[in-house]
Amino acid sequence: MRERLVVVGGDAAGMSAASQARRRRSHDDLEIVAFERGNFTSYSACGIPYYIGGVVDDAARLIVRNPETFRDTYQIDARVRHEVVGIDLDRRIVLARDLDTRAERAEPFDTLMVATGAIPERPPLPGIDARGIFGVQVLDDGFAIRRMLDDHKPRRAVVVGSGYIGLEMAEAFKIQGLEVTIVDSAPQPLSTLDPDMGALIADAMREAEIDVRRNEPVTGFEADDGGVTAVVTDSGTLPADIVVLGLGVSPNTQLAREAGIAIGASGAIRVDQQMRTTVESVWAAGDCAEKFHRVARRPVAIALGTHANKEGRVAGINIGGGYATFPGVVGTAVSRICELEVARTGLNESEASAAGFESLSIVAESTTRAGYYPGAKPMKIKLVVEKRSGRLLGAQIIGREGAAKRIDVFAAALWMELAVNEIMHLDLSYAPPYAPVWDPVLIAARKAWERVEDTLPDCR
Amino acid sequence: MRERLVVVGGDAAGMSAASQARRRRSHDDLEIVAFERGNFTSYSACGIPYYIGGVVDDAARLIVRNPETFRDTYQIDARVRHEVVGIDLDRRIVLARDLDTRAERAEPFDTLMVATGAIPERPPLPGIDARGIFGVQVLDDGFAIRRMLDDHKPRRAVVVGSGYIGLEMAEAFKIQGLEVTIVDSAPQPLSTLDPDMGALIADAMREAEIDVRRNEPVTGFEADDGGVTAVVTDSGTLPADIVVLGLGVSPNTQLAREAGIAIGASGAIRVDQQMRTTVESVWAAGDCAEKFHRVARRPVAIALGTHANKEGRVAGINIGGGYATFPGVVGTAVSRICELEVARTGLNESEASAAGFESLSIVAESTTRAGYYPGAKPMKIKLVVEKRSGRLLGAQIIGREGAAKRIDVFAAALWMELAVNEIMHLDLSYAPPYAPVWDPVLIAARKAWERVEDTLPDCR
Repeated sequence: MRERLVVVGGDAAGMSAASQARRRRSHDDLEIVAFERGNFTSYSACGIPYYIGGVVDDAARLIVRNPETFRDTYQIDARVRHEVVGIDLDRRIVLARDLDTRAERAEPFDTLMVATGAIPERPPLPGIDARGIFGVQVLDDGFAIRRMLDDHKPRRAVVVGSGYIGLEMAEAFKIQGLEVTIVDSAPQPLSTLDPDMGALIADAMREAEIDVRRNEPVTGFEADDGGVTAVVTDSGTLPADIVVLGLGVSPNTQLAREAGIAIGASGAIRVDQQMRTTVESVWAAGDCAEKFHRVARRPVAIALGTHANKEGRVAGINIGGGYATFPGVVGTAVSRICELEVARTGLNESEASAAGFESLSIVAESTTRAGYYPGAKPMKIKLVVEKRSGRLLGAQIIGREGAAKRIDVFAAALWMELAVNEIMHLDLSYAPPYAPVWDPVLIAARKAWERVEDTLPDCR
Repeated sequence: MRERLVVVGGDAAGMSAASQARRRRSHDDLEIVAFERGNFTSYSACGIPYYIGGVVDDAARLIVRNPETFRDTYQIDARVRHEVVGIDLDRRIVLARDLDTRAERAEPFDTLMVATGAIPERPPLPGIDARGIFGVQVLDDGFAIRRMLDDHKPRRAVVVGSGYIGLEMAEAFKIQGLEVTIVDSAPQPLSTLDPDMGALIADAMREAEIDVRRNEPVTGFEADDGGVTAVVTDSGTLPADIVVLGLGVSPNTQLAREAGIAIGASGAIRVDQQMRTTVESVWAAGDCAEKFHRVARRPVAIALGTHANKEGRVAGINIGGGYATFPGVVGTAVSRICELEVARTGLNESEASAAGFESLSIVAESTTRAGYYPGAKPMKIKLVVEKRSGRLLGAQIIGREGAAKRIDVFAAALWMELAVNEIMHLDLSYAPPYAPVWDPVLIAARKAWERVEDTLPDCR
């Protein structure tokens, strides 16, 4: 008898799982239905700031596959504007609401894939539901913001919070000619970096004529006729015609929680190596699911498209009768902000301390190419390493063109728990257009190892 | 009593060793004398093609440190235009010839550092000693070629052989307006790549209007009044006003061999983990010294500045009384040739076979950035993996801007003997300006793993 897979959430994790399951099981064997409350399937949410800023002119380019493609090519029934509002694990049904007709229907499943993603943090501040205050998470958010820019020509934008998406949105608004202010309660932008590195980002944004306000908690919003007019902080009032919330996101676990699927300590859905939840035949993947952090050695909630794709694929292979496991993450992230390339992986100083490591840090300066080669750009690498052992715990890079992708070597080294005295000898590629004879990665590792050696007890 | 370190060879390996020894031992404790037969110390030989092509306009920029700096800052007596012509291990002296006065002097040593580098292959073909036929190895070669371009305005250049330096020189001549031909006995340029990848380079060079002649062995050279006029091959005669030999280089081991220092199977000087030769207090590093290839698991001779720097540093630390080891190489190389970024690491198909591996290969096509992000460029990755295990054995990349440096992730993965089903899950950085949501590295690893799985015995 034909089984039925129901997928809740039609973006990266859900549709990757659906596609992989289909690759292994035919439509005669497995019916696949996916419900997506938004208007789109399988799109690049990470591309939204570039669409807002006009770097990418056509939002359609952010969409990898639409429902028609899923139906015609994969025999996957992907229903947009359908929100799953309840999961009944005993009766093995989900309740799906058609957002246009408001009709609700019980949809049976044998296997359930939970891929509900994440939702932007919306602190319960006075006025936060005013028109013109946007989270940036799904493609529909991008369209709504772009529409507001086109229709209402706002002059002043305020971004609340300074995570990656907040900074990227600030730049996008700046490109579109708005006056832009970033306001955050934190001492520096991008709290996933150490403050000394975050300060460099604040400098770059100010150079780009973006007002960066730090240590300034937002206390509420003012509105006129329902539309936002200002952001209120503990230090004053910032006039605003449009506001973006860049306070980070949380795993969207309400449905799972209500259904009795276990939530882990990270706040995301608990999963095993194969992406199984605690409930038989119920799987989870993507922003709503926990990931194992290989350096901190604990489950974490990290919302990132690349993880969602990998995890969805793993779940789909297993649902399809194959075998795959997801081995975890090391906390890698990268962004381009006002010409600055910014990347990080592993643990920063405070995260290392929280995980129980005693660490030391170095900052190494170098160039992206041989110093004499045209286009060589300055870059800084900060490394956090365990004292005594020299084991790499984390890396942060800030630089100009050609700097950031070097983070991948540190990500690979963290994966294997290498110490910096081994990293400094890695056989990395060298030619003048690509690196100094000592690649910046090697220079940083060498400097960190010298620091470790300086602190070793003298055994001579 | 003060000891004396004599360094033979004043480029990367020798001067790195000298500097590191000096960091740990003062001039009162250790006298350091370095002999360099050329006119320069510590320069970037890899930069020569960019100096010839005018990408780097001032050759002085290729020099990291000159003898005055070594003398004044490091108290290292670096004597250029002094050639060591003999080593007497019993009497602990080297015989050093002043190339200007022709005077020879016995120079005593307690510790000897052999850093004699490599010499370009010069097959004993008729006419090969004609004027206008150049190897490219030391900075003096670069000056000689540039002087010939300036003084004699050659119109037609022929590059014999198509290794990295040959291809880079061909492009440099092209930039300078010469008609350029590359002629090689091999079926494709860059024999360190598999032929299918080499063919893409041949295509790019032809697009740049460089004549690429393959499967065409050179049999000799014609000269007029001592100056080269043509390169003769088994298929005809190629008129040439200037010729560059790009046939690769060999370890320069004659002095060591004559002195009785052991030469390894690779043809380079045998060294241990600390860069000791087989003779007490005699060390070797750089192009003249063997390296352990971590994938092939045998000693190899590879001439590359980045290895020379690392090995020289290791030798110098040990000479200085510290402790360091050099853990070997995985055969990484990178080049930029006519806008094409080319990189490789590990073993290609034929090298894998020669090392006793049974392998399979895949080629994956992708883009350097998210497909919708401006500036996304095509790139191809070829992976050679062990069958059954899926262990990565080698990687080759050809692409446009932003492609080549990704080889470093494969180099790190080879270092740790990772299989492609682990590499495909590495937590590599993702953001639209830097990569598709599946980085090309991950796409290639995933494709390779699918190929491995296809060939596994069916255990169901």
